[in-house]
Amino acid sequence: MAQVSIPDSEVDIVIGAVQSDLASFMEEWRPIFSRYHLIIVKDPDLKDELKVPGGFNVNVYTKSDIDRVVGSSSTTVLFSGYSCRYFGYLMSRKKYIISVDDDCFPARDNKGDIIDIVAQHVSNLTTPATPFFFNTLYDPYRKGADFVRGYPFSLRHGVSCALSCGLWLNLADYDAPTQALKPGHRNSRYVDAVLTVPARTMMPVSGINIGFDRELVGPALFPAMRLAAEGKFRWETVEDIWCGMCVKVVCDHMGTGVKSGLPYVWREERGDAVESLKKEWEGVKLMEEVVPFFQSLRLSKAAVSAEECVVEMAVAVEERLGPVDPVFARAADAMVNWIKLWKVAGTRSAVA
Amino acid sequence: MAQVSIPDSEVDIVIGAVQSDLASFMEEWRPIFSRYHLIIVKDPDLKDELKVPGGFNVNVYTKSDIDRVVGSSSTTVLFSGYSCRYFGYLMSRKKYIISVDDDCFPARDNKGDIIDIVAQHVSNLTTPATPFFFNTLYDPYRKGADFVRGYPFSLRHGVSCALSCGLWLNLADYDAPTQALKPGHRNSRYVDAVLTVPARTMMPVSGINIGFDRELVGPALFPAMRLAAEGKFRWETVEDIWCGMCVKVVCDHMGTGVKSGLPYVWREERGDAVESLKKEWEGVKLMEEVVPFFQSLRLSKAAVSAEECVVEMAVAVEERLGPVDPVFARAADAMVNWIKLWKVAGTRSAVA
Repeated sequence: MAQVSIPDSEVDIVIGAVQSDLASFMEEWRPIFSRYHLIIVKDPDLKDELKVPGGFNVNVYTKSDIDRVVGSSSTTVLFSGYSCRYFGYLMSRKKYIISVDDDCFPARDNKGDIIDIVAQHVSNLTTPATPFFFNTLYDPYRKGADFVRGYPFSLRHGVSCALSCGLWLNLADYDAPTQALKPGHRNSRYVDAVLTVPARTMMPVSGINIGFDRELVGPALFPAMRLAAEGKFRWETVEDIWCGMCVKVVCDHMGTGVKSGLPYVWREERGDAVESLKKEWEGVKLMEEVVPFFQSLRLSKAAVSAEECVVEMAVAVEERLGPVDPVFARAADAMVNWIKLWKVAGTRSAVA
Repeated sequence: MAQVSIPDSEVDIVIGAVQSDLASFMEEWRPIFSRYHLIIVKDPDLKDELKVPGGFNVNVYTKSDIDRVVGSSSTTVLFSGYSCRYFGYLMSRKKYIISVDDDCFPARDNKGDIIDIVAQHVSNLTTPATPFFFNTLYDPYRKGADFVRGYPFSLRHGVSCALSCGLWLNLADYDAPTQALKPGHRNSRYVDAVLTVPARTMMPVSGINIGFDRELVGPALFPAMRLAAEGKFRWETVEDIWCGMCVKVVCDHMGTGVKSGLPYVWREERGDAVESLKKEWEGVKLMEEVVPFFQSLRLSKAAVSAEECVVEMAVAVEERLGPVDPVFARAADAMVNWIKLWKVAGTRSAVA
């Protein structure tokens, strides 16, 4: 891994707690997380008291904090379930945010060594991305790699990397139908690679294990797409898929990059996919509308910041997807309201 | 690997012999190649007699065969050096072609097993490609993999894969400047992945280790870009980089896919990169013109076959790149002449 040194103080680790007992989660991650500042946001729907072990530098936010900050200013930006993490993104004042679901544990690489997800995400984010030409030997900035013959020299400096998408060993991030069809299916393939997802290529960003540069794209990571029957299992949500496509469009427009690959986390089983199948396949159906929309979306030159990109995207969502399903009009409204919240949070930070 | 069974008789292995003694090369590959029909084309510049061990089902072509078939019909399609392999592509009557440079040997995977490059290329070519949306868990058709949450169901059937680009362990395919700067640099990272290079994304296709569906894209693999100071080492050629971008444009236009990743070959050292540096960096400089050209190239709906795509591309090359450097006008001419040769070869096959 390319050695780019940044102070630990530039990183926030944000955990959305959708379960109340975080003891085993935190203990497993202690060797990696204990050096950093943590932000834990308790799912406002959770009734039981949160159990967080001692010895961490941590801020815990609960429903009362959310109500205080967001108040009645928005009825569309909702922080329940997996979306509670986004409140942590709003509260962070650090350059880099690493976020991981609370059913994930440290994984081991092919050599059997524990994977430091913070170091890998930070490495991905602090070395350039190369979205304008594909390098067949993957990330050319990794130790032992380089640009292959034919790669234009003018593109070798790359661009800033804004988002780093990690992967999952054991239980991968499949949708409910796939998981239900293959209940014994486990991902055991450790692919030792990081790559830049090319410009104008859309991808399903998972919120399970990500890192991002908050200063570059923080405003574009929001809980906007809430399914009518959204559940408490990953395969019952698309909030991260939606905002992932928004981030990708923003990055393509702003000339920054998105990487995918390492680091892996070990993901434990939670939930019953067959039960989820009994609910409406709303998320799966919506993708058929969502993907062509984002693939064809081009922002105007007037949008020169992530905030402006999001507001412009919200208008397009309202206009082009709004008539298809009411869920899209609500998403557009949430995006606009999120930018308002983000600006207020930023102002408060400047005063504090 | 997904098990798609095709008869061995549908595969040609094409070797361009730029060295006369193929004994050790052939012996190393015997366990893998002996089941298939081989086409060996001797570099017409080679003076020594070709040494090919017995026990293979092989056709050997030499300068006299090239002269007989190509005759004086083209002064721009030249088959010297690494370009001699393309004469084999012209002579093949099989659906799939696997081609590997004669300085490559079988590599071993992470478990220490010998990699069967034919099986892996055929697997890549006979399972669908997914160029319209990026799957973060790489090739969804590989055993143990699938489409991740958020991947549109309407895109999961994929499209035909036309080209499979393999990689290199030990000596990777770098250009002369990179190789000269890092003489001790070796690629030791075995990345256990195959992925579809997304639509509209350009890449540096290397001819060192490839497989392709001759029926789908055969006409688009040709020796058109010949540097004024083209040499006998890989880093002194860009013929494969050029035709790789042509193939990618054809695939994007025709709705077929290109995969990259497995299989690896073990590549032995040959040549002195520092000596190559003393020559003009013509290939490296040309990429700066070539890449933006191919990135912006869009073919018309009138082009409905690979042949028609190539002819249309040749016109665009002549018009847009011709004025930049005479090498491009020669390339355009070679592309048109190649299609003529291809059609003649196809007709002869139908008669025979």
